[in-house]
Amino acid sequence: MLEKAGLTTGALVRAACRRGELTGQTAGLARGFTQANLLIVPRDYAFEFLLYAQRNPKPCPVLEVVEAGEVRPRMLAPDADLRTDFPKYRVWRNGELVDEPTDITGLWRDDFVSFLIGCSFTFETAMLDAGLPVRHIEMDRNVPMYRTNRPCEPAGRFAGPLVVSMRPMTPLQAIQATTITARFPGVHGAPVHMGDPAAIGIRDLNRPDYGDGVEIRPGEIPVFWACGVTPQAALLAAKPPIAITHAPGCMFVSDRKDAELTMG
Amino acid sequence: MLEKAGLTTGALVRAACRRGELTGQTAGLARGFTQANLLIVPRDYAFEFLLYAQRNPKPCPVLEVVEAGEVRPRMLAPDADLRTDFPKYRVWRNGELVDEPTDITGLWRDDFVSFLIGCSFTFETAMLDAGLPVRHIEMDRNVPMYRTNRPCEPAGRFAGPLVVSMRPMTPLQAIQATTITARFPGVHGAPVHMGDPAAIGIRDLNRPDYGDGVEIRPGEIPVFWACGVTPQAALLAAKPPIAITHAPGCMFVSDRKDAELTMG
Repeated sequence: MLEKAGLTTGALVRAACRRGELTGQTAGLARGFTQANLLIVPRDYAFEFLLYAQRNPKPCPVLEVVEAGEVRPRMLAPDADLRTDFPKYRVWRNGELVDEPTDITGLWRDDFVSFLIGCSFTFETAMLDAGLPVRHIEMDRNVPMYRTNRPCEPAGRFAGPLVVSMRPMTPLQAIQATTITARFPGVHGAPVHMGDPAAIGIRDLNRPDYGDGVEIRPGEIPVFWACGVTPQAALLAAKPPIAITHAPGCMFVSDRKDAELTMG
Repeated sequence: MLEKAGLTTGALVRAACRRGELTGQTAGLARGFTQANLLIVPRDYAFEFLLYAQRNPKPCPVLEVVEAGEVRPRMLAPDADLRTDFPKYRVWRNGELVDEPTDITGLWRDDFVSFLIGCSFTFETAMLDAGLPVRHIEMDRNVPMYRTNRPCEPAGRFAGPLVVSMRPMTPLQAIQATTITARFPGVHGAPVHMGDPAAIGIRDLNRPDYGDGVEIRPGEIPVFWACGVTPQAALLAAKPPIAITHAPGCMFVSDRKDAELTMG
């Protein structure tokens, strides 16, 4: 059996994926190493998606684009292979989920362009280090996520509402969390809203559109960050003939450290 | 004769351009309104250039991309027309300057994709407001700019060295300028270097590659920021059959305020 505690670097996590030993969630592995979401589209969709990301940097912070014909992310992890180094993938045809393989070598096409996108694990580590609560981690659940009534800026075939993640905290903690996450524009940055959920079109905090509900304690307010589900929802709505993403929670673990992602 | 002092908003500056009354520099006009560089390429070059910008955000901070077939920058100034609203343009064929028109309506093609790129005027305003020296403004010169020995991350046909601008100040002022400009990642952000010019391949500060030399006073160090000439040099080296840029100092003045460009 795989000893997850031994996976202390991005290289070790990726090697375990490549050997087929790690096929599940990467949360908590290789602490401090930046994890990334994956989104692969045919070249015909690449400019539009990159433009969508440029127009919506908070929900879609692109860490690296791997061009058509290449499988190695030379900035995030030059030794890695995008076809084998995730625990699990999702394959979408015309916007419909068709498979969840642990290796996509057999599906690879020379016109695939790969986008590695920043993920909130990075700023959650920084918040935990600062002693701030991250309720869904305390409760061992998935983060609650909600579709809002705020449209993203469309680009070509990519469009849709902003999706947010929510973490409850006191107003003072929310202020501290704002200053901390503002330092990480590469992983969603500062919150997009705090307080009244109805102001951004959320009817019931207990019924998230994705993930699990979490407890909000007396004196706490909900704090909302732009979420990486936003571009994935836009991708599926665009219904490309084929697209590949990471499976939920099964991220790419890079060689870069979270601390390198702060602005400057 | 045009009364420049009356050009207090982006809309007024653009109207003066459109009437053919303003054909020179925009520095100091419509103070507080964000100015932007222009770079137009045929669609065949658009993905590669956007990728180059994504990989090199400090020298090439994209504020808005106007897609093929469109001439209105709906985010920066929805009423504007990119074909008429700059004081002056430069037309490049195969990397060679061929014309400097004040209107490009007759050259327009439906496959032109336009990039509006953040410019250091924004952070210079913030530095002046904070009482920091901006020597080339004091001396009424162009900012000194230097090619460095640091290569940018290439993307397709776009490649070349980082070009930097330089402003001399005391170490304490340099620290203050760092904190101020770090708040503006959309316009080059924090410095890329300070102190020894040789460390980034600059031989003689008195002989800039672009712009004018400025006085460095006792107790001052040179402080270097990534410069918007970087993508323009990469563009010309790529030698597209046609490209259009703003003429030096003849920027687009938008409806957005500089203060909106701070991170968050």
